[in-house]
Amino acid sequence: MAKVAVIMGSTSDLPVMQDAIDVLKELGVETVVDIVSAHRTPEKMYDFGKNAHLKGISVIIAGAGGAAHLPGMVASLSPLPVIGVPVKSSNSIDGWDSVLSILQMPSGVPVATVALNGAKNAGILAAQIIGSSNKEIQATIVSYKEFLKDKVIKGAQEIKK
Amino acid sequence: MAKVAVIMGSTSDLPVMQDAIDVLKELGVETVVDIVSAHRTPEKMYDFGKNAHLKGISVIIAGAGGAAHLPGMVASLSPLPVIGVPVKSSNSIDGWDSVLSILQMPSGVPVATVALNGAKNAGILAAQIIGSSNKEIQATIVSYKEFLKDKVIKGAQEIKK
Amino acid sequence: MAKVAVIMGSTSDLPVMQDAIDVLKELGVETVVDIVSAHRTPEKMYDFGKNAHLKGISVIIAGAGGAAHLPGMVASLSPLPVIGVPVKSSNSIDGWDSVLSILQMPSGVPVATVALNGAKNAGILAAQIIGSSNKEIQATIVSYKEFLKDKVIKGAQEIKK
Amino acid sequence: MAKVAVIMGSTSDLPVMQDAIDVLKELGVETVVDIVSAHRTPEKMYDFGKNAHLKGISVIIAGAGGAAHLPGMVASLSPLPVIGVPVKSSNSIDGWDSVLSILQMPSGVPVATVALNGAKNAGILAAQIIGSSNKEIQATIVSYKEFLKDKVIKGAQEIKK
Amino acid sequence: MAKVAVIMGSTSDLPVMQDAIDVLKELGVETVVDIVSAHRTPEKMYDFGKNAHLKGISVIIAGAGGAAHLPGMVASLSPLPVIGVPVKSSNSIDGWDSVLSILQMPSGVPVATVALNGAKNAGILAAQIIGSSNKEIQATIVSYKEFLKDKVIKGAQEIKK
Amino acid sequence: MAKVAVIMGSTSDLPVMQDAIDVLKELGVETVVDIVSAHRTPEKMYDFGKNAHLKGISVIIAGAGGAAHLPGMVASLSPLPVIGVPVKSSNSIDGWDSVLSILQMPSGVPVATVALNGAKNAGILAAQIIGSSNKEIQATIVSYKEFLKDKVIKGAQEIKK
Amino acid sequence: MAKVAVIMGSTSDLPVMQDAIDVLKELGVETVVDIVSAHRTPEKMYDFGKNAHLKGISVIIAGAGGAAHLPGMVASLSPLPVIGVPVKSSNSIDGWDSVLSILQMPSGVPVATVALNGAKNAGILAAQIIGSSNKEIQATIVSYKEFLKDKVIKGAQEIKK
Amino acid sequence: MAKVAVIMGSTSDLPVMQDAIDVLKELGVETVVDIVSAHRTPEKMYDFGKNAHLKGISVIIAGAGGAAHLPGMVASLSPLPVIGVPVKSSNSIDGWDSVLSILQMPSGVPVATVALNGAKNAGILAAQIIGSSNKEIQATIVSYKEFLKDKVIKGAQEIKK
Repeated sequence: MAKVAVIMGSTSDLPVMQDAIDVLKELGVETVVDIVSAHRTPEKMYDFGKNAHLKGISVIIAGAGGAAHLPGMVASLSPLPVIGVPVKSSNSIDGWDSVLSILQMPSGVPVATVALNGAKNAGILAAQIIGSSNKEIQATIVSYKEFLKDKVIKGAQEIKK
Repeated sequence: MAKVAVIMGSTSDLPVMQDAIDVLKELGVETVVDIVSAHRTPEKMYDFGKNAHLKGISVIIAGAGGAAHLPGMVASLSPLPVIGVPVKSSNSIDGWDSVLSILQMPSGVPVATVALNGAKNAGILAAQIIGSSNKEIQATIVSYKEFLKDKVIKGAQEIKK
Repeated sequence: MAKVAVIMGSTSDLPVMQDAIDVLKELGVETVVDIVSAHRTPEKMYDFGKNAHLKGISVIIAGAGGAAHLPGMVASLSPLPVIGVPVKSSNSIDGWDSVLSILQMPSGVPVATVALNGAKNAGILAAQIIGSSNKEIQATIVSYKEFLKDKVIKGAQEIKK
Repeated sequence: MAKVAVIMGSTSDLPVMQDAIDVLKELGVETVVDIVSAHRTPEKMYDFGKNAHLKGISVIIAGAGGAAHLPGMVASLSPLPVIGVPVKSSNSIDGWDSVLSILQMPSGVPVATVALNGAKNAGILAAQIIGSSNKEIQATIVSYKEFLKDKVIKGAQEIKK
Repeated sequence: MAKVAVIMGSTSDLPVMQDAIDVLKELGVETVVDIVSAHRTPEKMYDFGKNAHLKGISVIIAGAGGAAHLPGMVASLSPLPVIGVPVKSSNSIDGWDSVLSILQMPSGVPVATVALNGAKNAGILAAQIIGSSNKEIQATIVSYKEFLKDKVIKGAQEIKK
Repeated sequence: MAKVAVIMGSTSDLPVMQDAIDVLKELGVETVVDIVSAHRTPEKMYDFGKNAHLKGISVIIAGAGGAAHLPGMVASLSPLPVIGVPVKSSNSIDGWDSVLSILQMPSGVPVATVALNGAKNAGILAAQIIGSSNKEIQATIVSYKEFLKDKVIKGAQEIKK
Repeated sequence: MAKVAVIMGSTSDLPVMQDAIDVLKELGVETVVDIVSAHRTPEKMYDFGKNAHLKGISVIIAGAGGAAHLPGMVASLSPLPVIGVPVKSSNSIDGWDSVLSILQMPSGVPVATVALNGAKNAGILAAQIIGSSNKEIQATIVSYKEFLKDKVIKGAQEIKK
Repeated sequence: MAKVAVIMGSTSDLPVMQDAIDVLKELGVETVVDIVSAHRTPEKMYDFGKNAHLKGISVIIAGAGGAAHLPGMVASLSPLPVIGVPVKSSNSIDGWDSVLSILQMPSGVPVATVALNGAKNAGILAAQIIGSSNKEIQATIVSYKEFLKDKVIKGAQEIKK
């Protein structure tokens, strides 16, 4: 079955990126996790980007902070859809740097950007992409949405007490 | 074959959104185009969102400007991957309003956001999503990247003359 | 008598939104409180928006954070004045996302936006709206302003000691 | 019947504020228009704010640019609901100054803020406020929303041709 | 001798504004301190602004946060130079609201704005203004600058050890 | 009588800074104009800053754009009050660079900052500073305010026709 | 002698980057110019970055717009100092995207960032870097500074006429 | 051998700037450290800037916060390459003030700006500049990059366990 690669620039991004791994597990999608730094391991990044689609991977999730080049560089190398997670790193200027260096990609090389620190949504989006050609996963997404609705309904009931 | 729906909040968004339609045609992907306004035709939006995946649509591209709610609302209704295009409308505060109201979706409901006015990239991303389970479209993406490279190489040659 | 509905996207918004409920109570205005999520319970939101004015509600206060679509979506569905409270949620980009996705509504569908986390002011504004056709509530507002003035005068006296 | 006062800091704001006057006329609401400058005619502003509710006015719309103090100052003087329109004036820093000096009012003195240059929405909001206690005006609002919907539907039909 | 009035919108601004009072004392300039709220005590503000120059006051320092209207409103009422201190209040959007609503005054009504929370500099600036026609105070300013220089020189010596 | 020095970093700032010179002439205050660049003529700037108060100058107005260091550097050298005018230069990032490099001075060295391109207000503020110890100039300021009020009153009358 | 490489992501960046080439010629420094796109020609970029210091190049100037990854990626590959020029491209969000994606590089991989569109300064900085170990070029820089000073002095003389 | 001067505006900048001193030591480059304030010790700054290149210094690193003028002023005085470190000081507006007052230098006077609080990168950049004409230091930079790569590789291995 289709697999999702979850990569990040540094082990310090793992606490944020774990949300993507967890929600994909919950949704029944297999993941491959790795540390790939655009700036410190450019050769590893090149190999990863060039070959991911040949290794059974369907979607790439890449998280990075500051001047975040990993999602865009991987998107330049791979024909797969790449989801970028802007991570709010310690010396970030309020997260604007991560957001803009992932979002504002030039014409020809898109990155599917999610919210600041939005790794959970990156995982759900990856599942939706796989689900767009896999009815079983799509059905899981439909019931996940029901689960979200139920939580709100219960919250509403409690607030009325 | 998989189809991509390209929707937008107003006919005034068409000049920007046309880029998505054009590049998808170029890449051999069929499109369905419609005007669906979150704020002026909420019922039509509801029907569209609830049923798109039942009508042979695989990916939804939604463009909107200002307090842009269309991409996020459609994402809340549909199990399909939704790509959001922030459109820089006339009274926009430099585009920040469109970008942030599409990007910063709450946990559970992702929107794959592309750059401000980045409709062309939205189209390419939609093709990559289809290509992740369709080797023919994926091959087209690979050769599209070759075409982009060639243009740069030619630009470099001209600059050296 | 006229009632004010206070709705919010999630129970996590309640600590902020409670200020609206409290000040309305203080000003003698009846409230109805509910959790209504634009993204997780779109059908409930639709029903709420379409019917609020038929159930004795005169003003709607809606609070939400991040890409905050609840106030604008309810405003698209209801003929009532809708007051939007931008809530500074945990992964917000300094509150700009909530502010801009509530404030920058397109032509035709206004939301009366108050300050970031300004739920108390939302409550007072709702009372002023009711007071614009209800002399008793208007008189309460006038004396509320006297009360604010007295507090400042007392603060000034203490500082001079 | 209830009247709406439309005031602005300078005649240079009239091209923007005219939209409020026009839409109120369209919706059948009477208006009173005046130039009242917080910084150049503070006494006139004081008189206006203190007495508007005694002269048959139900809602005040105030537009101003730059360090825009008119809406907030009038709100401090009047018990009526005050709608603020941030005007993007010539030396404005992209409109942020007008938006923030109107929106971020302190606790106790709300201003119902609309989008940058959003005078039309200010007019509609004023009509909604009157409509919250006047079934005839509320019915006009309901049909205005139908009219907006029809325009979008027609746009969608044309785009399909 | 010339006196400086230090006013602020709320007692909660005092911890910031105390720096102005302290440095003026250090520089030998007499101060008058009061709480004057543009939004809660508009009449007191009016009286203060209209009469300050008739009561032996030479310079006004006004501090306020959020949509900070006090400095600009006092500047509209008084012929005296008004120094504005943007205070970073609790629900401020990173201080931008206070800064822009004090700085971006319209043509004709200047406010001498200092840095966010820069009350100490407001005090020094007030002393410089008085010193511009008072050689004794000007001499104090000259020696204050020597004192600042000495502190840096000593810091440099310590760092070299 | 007291003189005001109007300096700027480059002749390209003159179109903006001319407003200061003109309004000071109108208000009966003598000016001295010069080009002094912090970055290109640091020695001239040093001499100017060290000696201005010895040459009959009472207030310094300094305008500069981009990373605008002239107002702050002159303020570090002179005991006189320095008014900074942020000029929106051609490659400015929307004026934010000029505003922040003039406004956010460290403790001990204030610059009285006015609005972006606000040279006219700088001139009025300089006259108010002189007027704080010169009853004739103060009276001129009082009548200037009357003149501003009359213009608004006339604008209001015309709008009512 | 030491050479400077001037590279850019696209021929559309040439009008901005030409300033670097011109000023380096003026200062007597040899340049090599090329188009190298991080996103469209990643292999060419890799070769360039890995080998520049082996081909007689001493400093690299890299210009790019939007999510500008070229300067940072080249800096990750080369031991040479890399100067980044943020180019304000057509769909840029006011230039913030280019500035932040070049400036905010992670620890270990610096890029020497200059002002938005500041290609001329990039050229001068490259010459200063070469001049730091080449007395002839350093002398040229010293006289270039004299030339800048003379231009200001002449501007000051003309303004006094 | 070539030395690097590390200067800063205040001892309070030392905790940030220490990273530059430490990494230069690690890379085998000698440093000279001093406190030089643009605003409090302008004469010392002038002497430093005018003479640094005559005292065996090859590169200057200057750190400052708020309206940070030290890097730009030293760059105006010295023919050496100047690296600016924007320090996020206590009353900074999220660091934007330091970043923009260092980055946006006018044409003719470049400052090589690094990330907010990026003193470590300033040190590495200084070593790269020296290395551009010193093969030994360049070789150290090459092995430093290998060291960074190894750390990432090890992080990747641990994450896989």
